[in-house]
Amino acid sequence: MSKLNFEKTLIIGIGLIGSSIARAIDKYNISSKIYILDNKESVIKKCSDLKFLEDAKTDIKDFSTQFDLIVISSPLSSYREIFLSLDNFVLKKTLITDVGSTKVSVIKDYIEVCKNNLINFIPSHPIAWLEKSGPEYGFAELFENRYCIITPQKTDEESLSKIKEFWNLLGMKIEIMNAEHHDRVLAMTSHLPQLIAYSIIFTANELEDHIKDEVIKYSAGGLRDFSRLAGSDPIMWRDIYSKNKDSVIEMLGRFTEDLTTLQKAIRNNDVKFLEKAFSSTRKVRKTIEELGQAGSFDPREKNK
Amino acid sequence: MSKLNFEKTLIIGIGLIGSSIARAIDKYNISSKIYILDNKESVIKKCSDLKFLEDAKTDIKDFSTQFDLIVISSPLSSYREIFLSLDNFVLKKTLITDVGSTKVSVIKDYIEVCKNNLINFIPSHPIAWLEKSGPEYGFAELFENRYCIITPQKTDEESLSKIKEFWNLLGMKIEIMNAEHHDRVLAMTSHLPQLIAYSIIFTANELEDHIKDEVIKYSAGGLRDFSRLAGSDPIMWRDIYSKNKDSVIEMLGRFTEDLTTLQKAIRNNDVKFLEKAFSSTRKVRKTIEELGQAGSFDPREKNK
Repeated sequence: MSKLNFEKTLIIGIGLIGSSIARAIDKYNISSKIYILDNKESVIKKCSDLKFLEDAKTDIKDFSTQFDLIVISSPLSSYREIFLSLDNFVLKKTLITDVGSTKVSVIKDYIEVCKNNLINFIPSHPIAWLEKSGPEYGFAELFENRYCIITPQKTDEESLSKIKEFWNLLGMKIEIMNAEHHDRVLAMTSHLPQLIAYSIIFTANELEDHIKDEVIKYSAGGLRDFSRLAGSDPIMWRDIYSKNKDSVIEMLGRFTEDLTTLQKAIRNNDVKFLEKAFSSTRKVRKTIEELGQAGSFDPREKNK
Repeated sequence: MSKLNFEKTLIIGIGLIGSSIARAIDKYNISSKIYILDNKESVIKKCSDLKFLEDAKTDIKDFSTQFDLIVISSPLSSYREIFLSLDNFVLKKTLITDVGSTKVSVIKDYIEVCKNNLINFIPSHPIAWLEKSGPEYGFAELFENRYCIITPQKTDEESLSKIKEFWNLLGMKIEIMNAEHHDRVLAMTSHLPQLIAYSIIFTANELEDHIKDEVIKYSAGGLRDFSRLAGSDPIMWRDIYSKNKDSVIEMLGRFTEDLTTLQKAIRNNDVKFLEKAFSSTRKVRKTIEELGQAGSFDPREKNK
């Protein structure tokens, strides 16, 4: 197998994911030169430890070079504008992929805006994240052993192979899926859990002050697991709910039905029903652990 | 300060918490002799690696000795029967504490059942756990840097000091609270999050088979954080909801209101509201981290 090597790669949006991708590209020698584009000068300044970077700009028009690979890793609400600028900028055959958490909206933005035949856009979703945001938290190993879902449209086999190999070199397991199905699966695995996490921390935060302080203090009892999710980037998530509205509302409806059923069982003291429901969920946890997708949670603090 | 040392300590119920307490008592030399009582012979068999144990029985009547300290760490539904057996068994002044997650119900069971004046019961709730259950998962350091809430009733200062010191030696930070307040705070920090975690994993598990497999596979996107909680002991949690029904239903009502508000904002595409709501929760996460109660989550699997 010939080793994948791009001459010039541009990362658009240099947050946690973008900086992790940049570090991984450098670590595994996937591109000879790595460039970044971020519309915030302040974010670019945080990348000063990334010595391998060739150049960094806040406006794509300021680059005097073209790229072989472009990876979009900015909030979903910025895609339309990015596609518009790429449509004008690209002057040679360019492979473009992204990391967006919704895929139908991304493809829609692309089709409506990009008319440039030199652009070959192959949408991806590497499912890997941390609750921290910002380039300073990135690390090259973020993607190891995680799944990357690719939702290709019309494309040639060679380009698709390159994108597959790219994520593969970052340590990811590749799956191909259609965009609509992706959005429905992710609504359940990611967008709904995140919304619920936000909601419960919001509820805790709205309690009267005297009880709120205690709630935070004793959060190790379970609430902290939600707070981890609720510490995520608000802009990123605001965009996801805006872009995957229908699937999220569908899954939320199912969740509310199940929660209401449990509430009724508690009210009626139906301990048999509760025990049965709680036992069934335990098996799901076991399967997640067996698949090696559980991560590891250590109750002891780091840096102690 | 004189070092706390009991002559004989009995642990009733040798699950994750009970076995961790036994290991910690041994590690810190808090008791000369440690005994265990568990009504399941099969559970006692799992304790064969605890070489320091003096004796283990399935029926308290089979012990021919009395104890100085008894720690109840069995499901809440067993307390009434345990208090009844202790009421008959205890023949000398005995300090009793527990680890139960609800405190009003525990005190009610005690008052209604225990008439033996030699028993001095000081209810405790060490807030420390793992999603695993069973004595084989216990470890002495489980309690380090976690909070223990004590909800004393009428008791003498000396006995209360001993119980405080006991949890303190296990590494815990002590707080005194009244039982009703404890149950309300814990409904929010622990019982509601747990119920929601069960509910969402239940929802995932009820999906059509073809999508369910994928949901489990891609759970690293957020669902896995809930699955950790939902892997907890069903009996323990069934009992908690039965014993802390009113506070749980109150907090659940608040949560449902907030979730409905978020749902409406998503439906109306109110991105400003969403961004604001998601930003407020981020601060809660920071506070939890600053208090050293966040635990640490490593996205890399253990044993890889």
